[in-house]
Amino acid sequence: MGLMHVFEIIGTVAFAISGAMVGISKEMDLFGTIFLAITTAVGGGVFRDLIIGITPPTAFVNPYFCVISIVSALIVFIFYNKLNKLNNIIQISDAIGLGAFTAIGCNVAINHNFTGTFIIVSLGLFTGVGGGILRDVFAQEIPFVFTKEIYAVASILGAITLIYARKIFDGYTASYICFFTTFIIRVLSIKCGLHLPKVRSEKEKSKFTL
Amino acid sequence: MGLMHVFEIIGTVAFAISGAMVGISKEMDLFGTIFLAITTAVGGGVFRDLIIGITPPTAFVNPYFCVISIVSALIVFIFYNKLNKLNNIIQISDAIGLGAFTAIGCNVAINHNFTGTFIIVSLGLFTGVGGGILRDVFAQEIPFVFTKEIYAVASILGAITLIYARKIFDGYTASYICFFTTFIIRVLSIKCGLHLPKVRSEKEKSKFTL
Amino acid sequence: MGLMHVFEIIGTVAFAISGAMVGISKEMDLFGTIFLAITTAVGGGVFRDLIIGITPPTAFVNPYFCVISIVSALIVFIFYNKLNKLNNIIQISDAIGLGAFTAIGCNVAINHNFTGTFIIVSLGLFTGVGGGILRDVFAQEIPFVFTKEIYAVASILGAITLIYARKIFDGYTASYICFFTTFIIRVLSIKCGLHLPKVRSEKEKSKFTL
Repeated sequence: MGLMHVFEIIGTVAFAISGAMVGISKEMDLFGTIFLAITTAVGGGVFRDLIIGITPPTAFVNPYFCVISIVSALIVFIFYNKLNKLNNIIQISDAIGLGAFTAIGCNVAINHNFTGTFIIVSLGLFTGVGGGILRDVFAQEIPFVFTKEIYAVASILGAITLIYARKIFDGYTASYICFFTTFIIRVLSIKCGLHLPKVRSEKEKSKFTL
Repeated sequence: MGLMHVFEIIGTVAFAISGAMVGISKEMDLFGTIFLAITTAVGGGVFRDLIIGITPPTAFVNPYFCVISIVSALIVFIFYNKLNKLNNIIQISDAIGLGAFTAIGCNVAINHNFTGTFIIVSLGLFTGVGGGILRDVFAQEIPFVFTKEIYAVASILGAITLIYARKIFDGYTASYICFFTTFIIRVLSIKCGLHLPKVRSEKEKSKFTL
Repeated sequence: MGLMHVFEIIGTVAFAISGAMVGISKEMDLFGTIFLAITTAVGGGVFRDLIIGITPPTAFVNPYFCVISIVSALIVFIFYNKLNKLNNIIQISDAIGLGAFTAIGCNVAINHNFTGTFIIVSLGLFTGVGGGILRDVFAQEIPFVFTKEIYAVASILGAITLIYARKIFDGYTASYICFFTTFIIRVLSIKCGLHLPKVRSEKEKSKFTL
């Protein structure tokens, strides 16, 4: 899985960068920034592994992607004030990560002999968006993925595509179809400003309480 | 467990509705709203299963309750502005869910041969209130269960009742005693406006910092 | 491990007190206050156990430290308005807890035959700071450990020291070296007001969004 591995690294760097930038914008210190970068990059995979009983999760056994995250965070920490210009590159890299992580999450499920559509899609989704959710919880924000643009839906559609593609193609090809489906939907949603529907409240926003 | 299954479904619907309503009130989009509904409905059970090593958690293997949650969320999404009138029904259904989930959580613990009071009560409690805690964390609110009314305490008392009831009755009967204990305490606390004590600060609210 | 056990109890009390005080300052009720105390005291250990597949986590099987946490929370609840004077004692106890929990977390990893530096340090760190992170997430604060002073770094340095000390000394001695390293770094950072670096933004604090 040569090319997919490259995508995974690009995605890890992009996720780590987004974690580090959120950390810095929330006035976290060097440790907080690095921790948030690691959490964003590997948090989804850790959650996925716990769900299916892989203990310790891969990220702890093989800290390869944690090291990538730490280096990425350090670079962001040093060059923070110059990174705004790279916003486009970061968004594209993030979309690459979303696609690669989704494909990898689905494959982990399949390699562990799970056959249900629901669990395969769930594990693809968690791997893709779990780290970002944790990032936002730690940064005291409502998770981005719950409020804006087509993000999780790109991951879900990519995962469903993978399941169907495997009925026609080999697993290797299906992974790339999943990757490109997720990636393209995500990039299109950014370029075209696509959003999922929201409810418009009739009255002033009345907060629901139990 | 025929009737308890009905209670479980009612509870799932009520929990999913509360998740969806919180999501919408926080301006989440369709995905966020559905995700929060699922989290509220099955999150406690997922956490309970992870605690005792059931991987993958039941909710992922059998997405039955997730589907119920999704349908509930969609209905809330469409009819949001008419649901305020149903506040009473939602509160009663939520109390039914709290009772059913508590009884189920305790039974899962007992069926896995745990005998300690602490772990049985903990698993009943987590199943009952865990989803709501996750809902509030994702919605950027201090968990409701930590601040208002008799909610967790109803679940704890129900769970303790179950343990003692099993010494006299069969497991089936004990489950219903647990259910009704939790349900009645919860409903009474709403009707009578009962709250747990809080500390009144002498000075102005001084925020504690380490 | 006689003395370390004493340190563990002191640390549990200190962590529970910090959880209870944060809970009260956030206007949580008695249940919320106790729950936050328990979470702060045992949450890190629970997460550590889940990571390495110890299910159910020790804290659920043996509720010894939960009981200590509950008693500590009750005392805080009753004497809250008199505790501000004890701030110094609480800080020192907290540092004792950080040291003891770090050493214990590393030893759990080693006793489960993990040999990698990364996972040993991670488990020491999670045991030391995980409860405090959960406390702050539930209290709707950006985790303290991400923003202020030398806290996590003390734990990390202590854990690294333990790994190297074990190459020279027995495990018992190495645990104490880890404990004192963590403790002293933490106390020095409080006394000297040491902080990790943060990024100073050139422009006004511009919030990063994906």
